[in-house]
Amino acid sequence: MAVKTIEWRAGSVRMIDQRLLPGREVIRTYRDYRRVAEAIRTMVIRGAPAIGVAAAMGVALAIRGTSGQRARARFERAANLLKATRPTAVNLAWAVDRMGRVFEASLALDAAHLYRRMRDEAIAIYQEDLAANRMLGRHGAALLTSPASVLTHCNAGALATAGYGTALGVIRAACEDGKEVRVFADETRPFLQGSRLTAWELRKDRIPVTIIADSMAASVLRAGQVDCVIVGTDRTAANGDVANKVGTYPLAVLARRHHVPFYVAAPLSSIDLECANGDQIPIEQRPSTELTEFGGKPIAPKGVEVFNPAFDVTPAELVTAIITERGIAYPPFDESLATLKRPR
Amino acid sequence: MAVKTIEWRAGSVRMIDQRLLPGREVIRTYRDYRRVAEAIRTMVIRGAPAIGVAAAMGVALAIRGTSGQRARARFERAANLLKATRPTAVNLAWAVDRMGRVFEASLALDAAHLYRRMRDEAIAIYQEDLAANRMLGRHGAALLTSPASVLTHCNAGALATAGYGTALGVIRAACEDGKEVRVFADETRPFLQGSRLTAWELRKDRIPVTIIADSMAASVLRAGQVDCVIVGTDRTAANGDVANKVGTYPLAVLARRHHVPFYVAAPLSSIDLECANGDQIPIEQRPSTELTEFGGKPIAPKGVEVFNPAFDVTPAELVTAIITERGIAYPPFDESLATLKRPR
Repeated sequence: MAVKTIEWRAGSVRMIDQRLLPGREVIRTYRDYRRVAEAIRTMVIRGAPAIGVAAAMGVALAIRGTSGQRARARFERAANLLKATRPTAVNLAWAVDRMGRVFEASLALDAAHLYRRMRDEAIAIYQEDLAANRMLGRHGAALLTSPASVLTHCNAGALATAGYGTALGVIRAACEDGKEVRVFADETRPFLQGSRLTAWELRKDRIPVTIIADSMAASVLRAGQVDCVIVGTDRTAANGDVANKVGTYPLAVLARRHHVPFYVAAPLSSIDLECANGDQIPIEQRPSTELTEFGGKPIAPKGVEVFNPAFDVTPAELVTAIITERGIAYPPFDESLATLKRPR
Repeated sequence: MAVKTIEWRAGSVRMIDQRLLPGREVIRTYRDYRRVAEAIRTMVIRGAPAIGVAAAMGVALAIRGTSGQRARARFERAANLLKATRPTAVNLAWAVDRMGRVFEASLALDAAHLYRRMRDEAIAIYQEDLAANRMLGRHGAALLTSPASVLTHCNAGALATAGYGTALGVIRAACEDGKEVRVFADETRPFLQGSRLTAWELRKDRIPVTIIADSMAASVLRAGQVDCVIVGTDRTAANGDVANKVGTYPLAVLARRHHVPFYVAAPLSSIDLECANGDQIPIEQRPSTELTEFGGKPIAPKGVEVFNPAFDVTPAELVTAIITERGIAYPPFDESLATLKRPR
């Protein structure tokens, strides 16, 4: 895809404002980590791998011009702020903790060298995510027939990552192999990542896409129009329970009912072996205005009560396979995921 | 509820424009049946029983000032136009056919008397629907515990009927009995009947309501926060297969998975014994702009493909009971529905 989700350039973090897509392609430039935290919180950038990269770059911005104890104070303030922006995606904590280990190992450096070291690590996280998506895509592509009709939810594409995408990376890799793939994209309320972002990305790559309301996925599955479901994940627990955009769990239930494989595209950075199962994954609640307003206009009675969880948990028993950059994990996931995550 | 969905007044049909709720309460007045047909098609008025009443009133408008063969030509033109506006709800054909029987029996009358007869029949359909809702509500209320948490989809309320409502009629009747009922309302994409209409109605009646995106119903069910699901229907087949607003079928699948009863509130006018099963129910496709635009603003890439079925079919095996104005039908539905529909 031609447009970059996020980029480090000339001492600043640049990202496309995903709230305005597909209507407008506006690039935001940040030099202050607090602005980066705000961008993550308000979903200028979203997608677990992408916000991991953004947080790492934010940390690099935060310690610029400092060293020693002043740098440590800055690092800690930034790490806490960035980690707290969105609780569900583990990539955020994963990236910040990785930056923290480099920081501790580099504390003897002067300000300029410390900054360079941290900046390089953030860029490495970006580049590794891109490479991981490519590898993950290659492994996943082998699962697709040709022709294949794939149903996806939310946006696990280039816009959710450093580039290329996880679920959409699998689709892209299959297309690169010459397979004929068409996609059903759930619009994904309330933020409409499916109709706004996934459809936009796929059309840029000339991959056929049909958008449906989330509630229509069941009709499409029932009509036998879907060969497999592929989704991303914000955090996958050690036992294979998958936290992902709300609406993923009902899709998995329906895929099972209609004997359609349910695949999760999960870079290792989103697999959290510290988390035994899905019950331990914190589920973010988003502002009620996401459901009561649209473009600032009211679409519900004033003051109505709202429940707006951003994610749900799909139990491992409904997951056919988890696709990672090191290969495909099958049940029992506690064993297969631990094996794939083992340092090599 | 204080606001009237539809009303015959001074030789015209008046209805509240449901596209503008809850923001604005605008009453439309129609004296031409073609405007009534357009109002049904564009969803100024919606809900199977309500559009049945609207079509009956439209037929009365159509034949005004005519008699004999001129009246017949007018009747046929109006009947065809009105029946074609929305194919899934059987109430439309049911009401127009009932008007047709009265018309045939009254053809010897002069224009003034014919018109009065047809107008009175349309008003009778309106009043009978209101009475049926009340009775249906009474029967259904017995199924609810106190306190009860009810999940509903779309709007099967006063706004979908002559007044009072079917699914919401059950909730209203339970509240009138002093039961403590709270409601989860799916927002119901793309038209947002849940957040715009159901929430608005229930708040007017001070019944506690929480709105959720359609994709969040699974989370609420899984968390054990729902005692039963109650929905309306646009057409229920002889075997108990239920056509209703798209998103009903996945709800039924999830209710079953979580051992939650799934009830359908179905006035007899929406039960179509001529239809053996759900496969024979035509499913209306709505314009793609319902998914690609919001308030005239694009929310998807230009020219993207869209699949927008307005309804889905829930197989009878997932339905716990069907609530009618003559009592509650349990499986096997082919027997219980036929018994309830039998003329008395």
